[in-house]
Amino acid sequence: MIISKAHRTRAIGIFDSGIGGLTVVAEILRQLPNENMIYFGDTGRYPYGPRSREIIKKFSRQNINFLLEKGIKFIVVACNTASAYALEYVKRIYSIPMIGVVKPGSEAAARFTVNGRIGVIGTEGTIASLSYQKALKKINDSFKVVAKSCPLFVSLAEEGYIDKPAARLIAKDYLLEIKNKKIDALVLGCTHYPLLKSVIGSVMGKGVTLVDSAEQTAVAVKQALGRLDLSNPSKKAGKTRFYVSDSPGKFKILGERFLGKSIGKVNLIDINAY
Amino acid sequence: MIISKAHRTRAIGIFDSGIGGLTVVAEILRQLPNENMIYFGDTGRYPYGPRSREIIKKFSRQNINFLLEKGIKFIVVACNTASAYALEYVKRIYSIPMIGVVKPGSEAAARFTVNGRIGVIGTEGTIASLSYQKALKKINDSFKVVAKSCPLFVSLAEEGYIDKPAARLIAKDYLLEIKNKKIDALVLGCTHYPLLKSVIGSVMGKGVTLVDSAEQTAVAVKQALGRLDLSNPSKKAGKTRFYVSDSPGKFKILGERFLGKSIGKVNLIDINAY
Repeated sequence: MIISKAHRTRAIGIFDSGIGGLTVVAEILRQLPNENMIYFGDTGRYPYGPRSREIIKKFSRQNINFLLEKGIKFIVVACNTASAYALEYVKRIYSIPMIGVVKPGSEAAARFTVNGRIGVIGTEGTIASLSYQKALKKINDSFKVVAKSCPLFVSLAEEGYIDKPAARLIAKDYLLEIKNKKIDALVLGCTHYPLLKSVIGSVMGKGVTLVDSAEQTAVAVKQALGRLDLSNPSKKAGKTRFYVSDSPGKFKILGERFLGKSIGKVNLIDINAY
Repeated sequence: MIISKAHRTRAIGIFDSGIGGLTVVAEILRQLPNENMIYFGDTGRYPYGPRSREIIKKFSRQNINFLLEKGIKFIVVACNTASAYALEYVKRIYSIPMIGVVKPGSEAAARFTVNGRIGVIGTEGTIASLSYQKALKKINDSFKVVAKSCPLFVSLAEEGYIDKPAARLIAKDYLLEIKNKKIDALVLGCTHYPLLKSVIGSVMGKGVTLVDSAEQTAVAVKQALGRLDLSNPSKKAGKTRFYVSDSPGKFKILGERFLGKSIGKVNLIDINAY
């Protein structure tokens, strides 16, 4: 297949349930500064973590239909729950290349572990899907994987409860069980969790490497674009456009705080029309 | 208008963003045991608290369209955020009689206060709408109203964090500011908050009456049905049917725990078709 230059300059489409996927955007901006991006945050239907597999599959289809309409070359499912529940399903439906965050996060954990004991934390959906557990076992069947859902972490991160004593108490409730299993790498299997890194790190102790899948996902995007001959040949800085399904003003404020720069207009769309 | 017996035996339609509205169902079961109910929990799009006024108006319209299709006689908007953002709007559109939870809760607080200083806690949307503040001022313009959004309370209640030290620390963060204003009545302006009553009560201290709008709303339903000649003349126990927009199995488990009895089949619907 011959790929035109115009096709290579197309944007990477990224979606997440809300603002969490901006951790992936930040890493792509850093590692692939000349790529254009279209980001969709499903703020009218977040969070995805506690919802069913069936509805996450439907939401993912609608989000991808919207991104495709914008003329993109590649899709990143930046949400762990959507990656866990829907990535294999949407890959069978659509021909556009896409990646999620579960495989890159698992591969990184596999590189970091020494004793072969790996912890995974995420939303109820991500943990119930067994996606990380399966991805890690596929890399090395002798890995011992301990998984735990930490549903309150998303709200704590969103409310800025990232270093208060209450956050530490809740982190202890969730994590002591994993800590006791002597893991040496812990996958932060939800894009919100890196915001709680310091609390999670202090509960887990120094011997445990925290694996942030955003960074690894950006590396995987770079490799995939190279392999598929889809890298943007432009030398100019890429542009990122933002779309949401509710509250564009709030997204703009949080997004700019998150990325540490102006993000321009945030556009409101009706995702149920897709 | 002559109301037929068949019309009076129709169900009361109730909707909420999820399971919180079951506090209202429980009170109606207790106070109006012969009424039939159709309950819709919007579990595919909860929570409503952090979303915009515009999307809550749209969701409320869809929820009401669904309930109307079921052939009901009266509507209870059991969600505080929907009552606050959308009740006046939907009342202008539809002819069916309806009530929300804000007016009953405000009237109860007005009866309970002695010093005229009333606190209101709720979701971001409920507090930002100023609905309680306006409803209380309308009852008595000399009331001093102190309002505060407590966004983490919904997640704490849903995760069963109702009596742990972390819940107490978070309650203190949210409530000390209100407590210092010397209020003597506090409206729990979110259907989830009664689950945290013991923590909220212990932070506020003995001099403060906690006002649970569910109970007051059931009283208001009873009065409205009487006034409109819509009370069910049947002497038999009413039936309640449940519908949700996601995860019927999870709703059934939580709902039965909540109501302390079997709730039969929970039906899954596509709310975006309405």
